[in-house]
Amino acid sequence: MIKIALLGCGRIGKMHAATVARAPSAELAVVYDPIGAAAEEVGRHYGCAVAASAEEAIAQADAVLIATSTPTHADLIEASARAGKAIFCEKPIDLSLSRVAACRQAIGGFSGPIQIGFNRRFDPGHRAARDSARAGEIGELQQVVITSRDPGLASRDYLKASGGIFKDMTIHDFDLARFMLDEEPVEVFATGSTLIDPTLAELNDLDSVMVVMRTESGKLCHINNSRAAVYGYDQRVELFGSKGMVISGNRKAHELERFGATATGVGEPYLNFFIERYAEAFTLGLESFLKCVEENRTPDATFEDGEKSLALAEAANLSLAEGRFVNIREIRA
Amino acid sequence: MIKIALLGCGRIGKMHAATVARAPSAELAVVYDPIGAAAEEVGRHYGCAVAASAEEAIAQADAVLIATSTPTHADLIEASARAGKAIFCEKPIDLSLSRVAACRQAIGGFSGPIQIGFNRRFDPGHRAARDSARAGEIGELQQVVITSRDPGLASRDYLKASGGIFKDMTIHDFDLARFMLDEEPVEVFATGSTLIDPTLAELNDLDSVMVVMRTESGKLCHINNSRAAVYGYDQRVELFGSKGMVISGNRKAHELERFGATATGVGEPYLNFFIERYAEAFTLGLESFLKCVEENRTPDATFEDGEKSLALAEAANLSLAEGRFVNIREIRA
Amino acid sequence: MIKIALLGCGRIGKMHAATVARAPSAELAVVYDPIGAAAEEVGRHYGCAVAASAEEAIAQADAVLIATSTPTHADLIEASARAGKAIFCEKPIDLSLSRVAACRQAIGGFSGPIQIGFNRRFDPGHRAARDSARAGEIGELQQVVITSRDPGLASRDYLKASGGIFKDMTIHDFDLARFMLDEEPVEVFATGSTLIDPTLAELNDLDSVMVVMRTESGKLCHINNSRAAVYGYDQRVELFGSKGMVISGNRKAHELERFGATATGVGEPYLNFFIERYAEAFTLGLESFLKCVEENRTPDATFEDGEKSLALAEAANLSLAEGRFVNIREIRA
Amino acid sequence: MIKIALLGCGRIGKMHAATVARAPSAELAVVYDPIGAAAEEVGRHYGCAVAASAEEAIAQADAVLIATSTPTHADLIEASARAGKAIFCEKPIDLSLSRVAACRQAIGGFSGPIQIGFNRRFDPGHRAARDSARAGEIGELQQVVITSRDPGLASRDYLKASGGIFKDMTIHDFDLARFMLDEEPVEVFATGSTLIDPTLAELNDLDSVMVVMRTESGKLCHINNSRAAVYGYDQRVELFGSKGMVISGNRKAHELERFGATATGVGEPYLNFFIERYAEAFTLGLESFLKCVEENRTPDATFEDGEKSLALAEAANLSLAEGRFVNIREIRA
Repeated sequence: MIKIALLGCGRIGKMHAATVARAPSAELAVVYDPIGAAAEEVGRHYGCAVAASAEEAIAQADAVLIATSTPTHADLIEASARAGKAIFCEKPIDLSLSRVAACRQAIGGFSGPIQIGFNRRFDPGHRAARDSARAGEIGELQQVVITSRDPGLASRDYLKASGGIFKDMTIHDFDLARFMLDEEPVEVFATGSTLIDPTLAELNDLDSVMVVMRTESGKLCHINNSRAAVYGYDQRVELFGSKGMVISGNRKAHELERFGATATGVGEPYLNFFIERYAEAFTLGLESFLKCVEENRTPDATFEDGEKSLALAEAANLSLAEGRFVNIREIRA
Repeated sequence: MIKIALLGCGRIGKMHAATVARAPSAELAVVYDPIGAAAEEVGRHYGCAVAASAEEAIAQADAVLIATSTPTHADLIEASARAGKAIFCEKPIDLSLSRVAACRQAIGGFSGPIQIGFNRRFDPGHRAARDSARAGEIGELQQVVITSRDPGLASRDYLKASGGIFKDMTIHDFDLARFMLDEEPVEVFATGSTLIDPTLAELNDLDSVMVVMRTESGKLCHINNSRAAVYGYDQRVELFGSKGMVISGNRKAHELERFGATATGVGEPYLNFFIERYAEAFTLGLESFLKCVEENRTPDATFEDGEKSLALAEAANLSLAEGRFVNIREIRA
Repeated sequence: MIKIALLGCGRIGKMHAATVARAPSAELAVVYDPIGAAAEEVGRHYGCAVAASAEEAIAQADAVLIATSTPTHADLIEASARAGKAIFCEKPIDLSLSRVAACRQAIGGFSGPIQIGFNRRFDPGHRAARDSARAGEIGELQQVVITSRDPGLASRDYLKASGGIFKDMTIHDFDLARFMLDEEPVEVFATGSTLIDPTLAELNDLDSVMVVMRTESGKLCHINNSRAAVYGYDQRVELFGSKGMVISGNRKAHELERFGATATGVGEPYLNFFIERYAEAFTLGLESFLKCVEENRTPDATFEDGEKSLALAEAANLSLAEGRFVNIREIRA
Repeated sequence: MIKIALLGCGRIGKMHAATVARAPSAELAVVYDPIGAAAEEVGRHYGCAVAASAEEAIAQADAVLIATSTPTHADLIEASARAGKAIFCEKPIDLSLSRVAACRQAIGGFSGPIQIGFNRRFDPGHRAARDSARAGEIGELQQVVITSRDPGLASRDYLKASGGIFKDMTIHDFDLARFMLDEEPVEVFATGSTLIDPTLAELNDLDSVMVVMRTESGKLCHINNSRAAVYGYDQRVELFGSKGMVISGNRKAHELERFGATATGVGEPYLNFFIERYAEAFTLGLESFLKCVEENRTPDATFEDGEKSLALAEAANLSLAEGRFVNIREIRA
C-alpha cells in the first residue's frame, strides 16, 4: 500500500482524497492544509492522520499530492523531493519560469516519479484521439485545432492572482497541444482582446485569445480561448492528418434530445465546469500516477512538461507584446 | 446509518455493495450468499459480517438487498417482510404471476418500503425524458417507442431458466413503458420470431419480438427487442406528444469521432452491456431506495410495478399464442 | 424523345412538368386538366399543347403521367393502356381493392412500363438503406422500423375523401416496408386512436396508428404514424440485421447548429412537407420511369406494388376491426 | 427579361447557363468561349447565339457573366463596364492587387451592379450563420473559426497558375471572414507548411496554412486550410459571441447512418467537391445577382469585396515572409 500525504484540502484536494480512497494500491495516510479545519474535515472523513505542517505530512508518506495554492508548489516539490517521496503536483509548478528552473535544479538528483496535474491528457476522449494518431490511423499528423472556452468569467480576485490568461488557462491547451503533436512547437504566435470585460485591460490581461504554433517539421496548431461561453464549458480537440481526422468532442450528462415547434434536436448542456467535465480525467490521472509509483515508472505528465508549457505561455506573452512569431529558443528562464 | 444486509454476492450484488459503501446514510452490515466463498470475499473487502443463512443476515439489518437467483426472490421478500425490514429486490419478483400474487398477499400487512430493481427508471436520460413529458414539454403524450436490443445471445443455460424473452428481457421495457406512459396499458399485442438462433424454438422461446400496447385513453406504445445487435447494446426511448418529441439515446464511453477515406463521423461503440450502460442507473436506483428508507417513503418502482410488468409479459405470451390483441383484464394470477 | 402527356396540372403535376423539362430524353408534348385554366398555365409555361380531354392528350403521347384526383386513376390507367402508352400514375391506383383488381384485369394484355408514384422508394437515403441491406452490409435483415409523421392534420375535406389513414398515409409506409423487407408481409396487426382530433371518429378515421407485420420467414416490421408532429415532417427508416443496422434519417435545409444559454446543438427544422422532403425522390422517380420507357424495362414500383400495398391497408382495417393478426391471404379484392 | 451574355463555357460557365435557363427573369442570349466548340455546345443546348468575340457577346446583352480564366477577368470587367452592362465575375478579379486597383479606376464611373463570384456567401448554412449573428442571436460576435480543406491536391499545372494558396484558396475564406465579421480585419498573421507535397516549395507555395486576424474592435478570426483532406471537402464556419455560438457544418448527400460490429454511426461522405457542396450557393448567388440587376441594387459581393480579400491575401503573404502581425494598411496596390 502506497501511503499518501495530501497537501491542500480544497476542492481538488478532496477529489484526490476520494480517488485514493477507492484505489486498491494506496491509502490516505495523512492530510495537511494551512486552514486546520479543512484538514480536520478530510482527516475525519477518511480516518487518517492530520499533520501540523506540510513537512510533517511529507515525512509520513510514500507519495505526496500537492494541491495547495500555486505559490507553494515549487517549495513543496523541493521539500518532497528532498524527503525522497514520489510527487504529484497540481499545475502550474509556478508562474515564474525562473522559479521553475530553480526548482528543477534543486531537485536535480531526485529519481522518483513526479507528475504534474495536466488532467486533460487523461480524459478518455482526448486520449483516444492521441492514441488514434499515434497508432497511425490518421496518417501523418498535420494540423491540431484546440477549442477551449470557460463557461463564465472567473472572479476578479482569481484573475488578479492567475498570472494572465496564457499561464492560467491556455497553459492547459499548450500542454494538450504538445501531447497531441508529439513534437515540440518551436514558433508561437498569439494575439487577443478584452471582448468580455474591457476592464481586464487594467490587469494587463485578456479574455479572448488565439494562438498559432508551428513545430520543427512544420506541423501547425491553433488554440482559441474564451473566458465566457454562455452555452457551457467548450472543450474540443481536432487532429487532422494525411489519412483522416479525429475530433474529441464535448460531453453531456445524458443523451436526451428534444424536438419542439421551434427547435430540433436540442441536446443537454455540456458538462460544466472542469470538475464535472474532467472528473474521469482527474481520477484516471491520479490512478496513473499511483501505477507509476508502484512500478517506479516515469509519469505521462512530467516536471519537464510543466516547464515546457510555461515556456510556451511566456512565448505567447512575448508574441503578444511584439506582434511576431516567437521562437521558443528565445524564451529563457 | 441504515444497516444493510446483502443477499447474493454475484455481479449485481457486488455493484450494490460498492454503492452502499459510498452512501453516507448506509453501511453494509452483513452479507450472505449460498456460495460461502462469494460472501466471504465481499465480507472481507468491506469489513462486514458474513451470515450463515439469509434469515441470519436479514435479522441483523434495517434493510435487505435481494440479489440472489430469481427463484429465491419471493421467499426472501416474504422473510424480510416478516422481519419488518425495508426491501430492495432485483427483478423479477418471480416468473409465475400466481407466485407473485401469493407473495403480495403474504406480505399484505407490510408497510415498509419495498423496491423492485427496475434500474432503467433511474437512468438519467430515460428519466429526463419522462420528466420532460410530465412537465408538459411535449404536450399530451401520444406515442412511445422503445428499442431494446442486447449485444449478443445469452448462453443456452441462461435462456433455459429465463422464463422466455417477454418475462426476461421485455419485462424491463414493459416497466419502462408504464413509467413513460403514466397510464396503464390495457391491450397488448405481441409477435416474434427466432431469426438469430432457430434452435430457440426448442425452448419455445423467441429472439426477435415486436409488441404494441394501447392504454385506456388511446396512447400507443411500441417495443422492439432483439437478443443480438452486433453494434452493441441498443437502448433508446422515444416519447411523442402533441407539442413535441424527446428521445433518450445511447451512451458512449467518450465523444471521439473518426473521419477517414471510407467513413465519416464514426463514433465510439455504445456502452456494452447493461452493467456499463446502466451503471449510473444502478447506483441512482439504490440511492433512491436508501432515501425512501430514511424518509419512509414509497419507492419509485414498487412491488405492484413488478407484478404489473409480469402481467404484461403474460399478456404478451397469450397474444403470441392466440394472434390477437389481449386485454390485460384477461390476465389473472 | 419521349413525348409526355401530363394529366392533372396541380401541385404534383407541375413538379412532374418541371422534371420532364429538365430531362434530356423526354419532352412535355401535351397537358390536360379538368380545370382548363390550370392546363393552360402549364401549357403556356412549357410551350406545349393543351388537350380538351384526357383521351386527346393520351393520343398525342408516348407516355402518360397521371396526376389527377384519385377516383380517376384507374380509368386513366385503362385508357392509357388501351392506347398502348407507357404509364406513370400517382398513388393510389384506387381506394377500392376490387376496382384495382378490375383495372389489373382490364389492362391484362398491356406490356408497356407502368409505374406507381411511390416516391419514397427513390429517396436517396431510403434507397441507400435498402441498397445497403441488399448488398449484405447488415447481414440477414431481421427488423424494420418505419416512423412516418405528418407535420399537421390535413383539412376535413381532404380527410373525408382520403379513404382513411391506412389507405391514405400508411400506404406509403406499407410500400416502403415491402421495398425494404424484400419479402411479402403475410400477417398484419394494426391499432390506433384519435388523439389529435377526437372528432375524426365521426369519419371512422384515426390520427395515430401503430402497425406490426411479419413475413413468411419471420422478419418483423413496425410502422408508426401520426397526423401531426409539431416539430415537422418526420420520416425515418431503420433496418436491423444480423450484421448491423442502418438508419435513414430526416433531412434539413442546411447544417446550422445553434448553441445558447438554454439550448445546445439546436438544428434546423426538418424539411416540411413531402414536396420539400421528397423533392429529389419525385425527380428521381420520374427520371427512373423515363429510363424504363427508353429501355422498355419494368419500373421499380409496379402496378402490383400498388395493389399489394392497398391489400396491406385493407388488412390493417380488418385487423383494427377484429383486434387480431390478419393473414394477407384473407384479403380478397 | 434580362439578356445574359455568358463568357466562358467551362464547368462553372455551364452551371451558370443552367441557372439562367431556370430563372424566370433572365434568358441566355449569347455565349462566348475562346474554344469555339465549347461555346457551340452550350449555344446549341440552350438555343442561343454564339459570339465570335467577347466584345460581340457583351454588345448583345444586358448583363455579362464572366467565367473565363483569371487573367482575362479584369479586361472583361472593363469592357463590360464600358458597354454599360451589369457584371457578374468569377473570383478573383486578378491575382495582382495593382491590376485590380487599375481596374477599379478604369470602371470608376460605372454605376451598374457588379458582383464577384464569392459563392460561399450564398450557401444556405453559412448565410444562416451570418443572419443569426446579425440578428443578435449570439450577442456580440467575438470569434470566428473557419475550417476549409480541399479533398485532394490540385494538379501541378493548376497550382503553378494559382497565385499561391492565399490568393487561390484562402481568398474564399478571407471573403467569408469579412462577411461574417461584419467589420474589416486590420491585422493578419499567417504561417504554413508543405506537409502534403514537399515539392510545392519549388513553387514557393504551401499546402497547409493557418491564419489569425484581428479587427479594429478586437474581434478574432482563425482560418485553417489544407489542400488534401482524405475524408472529403471540409467546409465549416463557427461564430462565437457573448450570447452563444452557431456552427455551419458539412453537408452530405443524404442522412444514412450505418452501425456495424466495428463502427457506430457512420455517416455519408461530405459532398465533394465545391461544385456539389456549393451547388445551391452557385445558384442562389447568381439568382441574387439577377435580382440586383432587375432592381438596380448593389450586390452582396462587390468589386470592393474582391479587392479587399485580395489585400488580405497579400497581407498573409507578407506576414509569412516576415513572421509578424501585418497591418492591412501596409498593403498598397
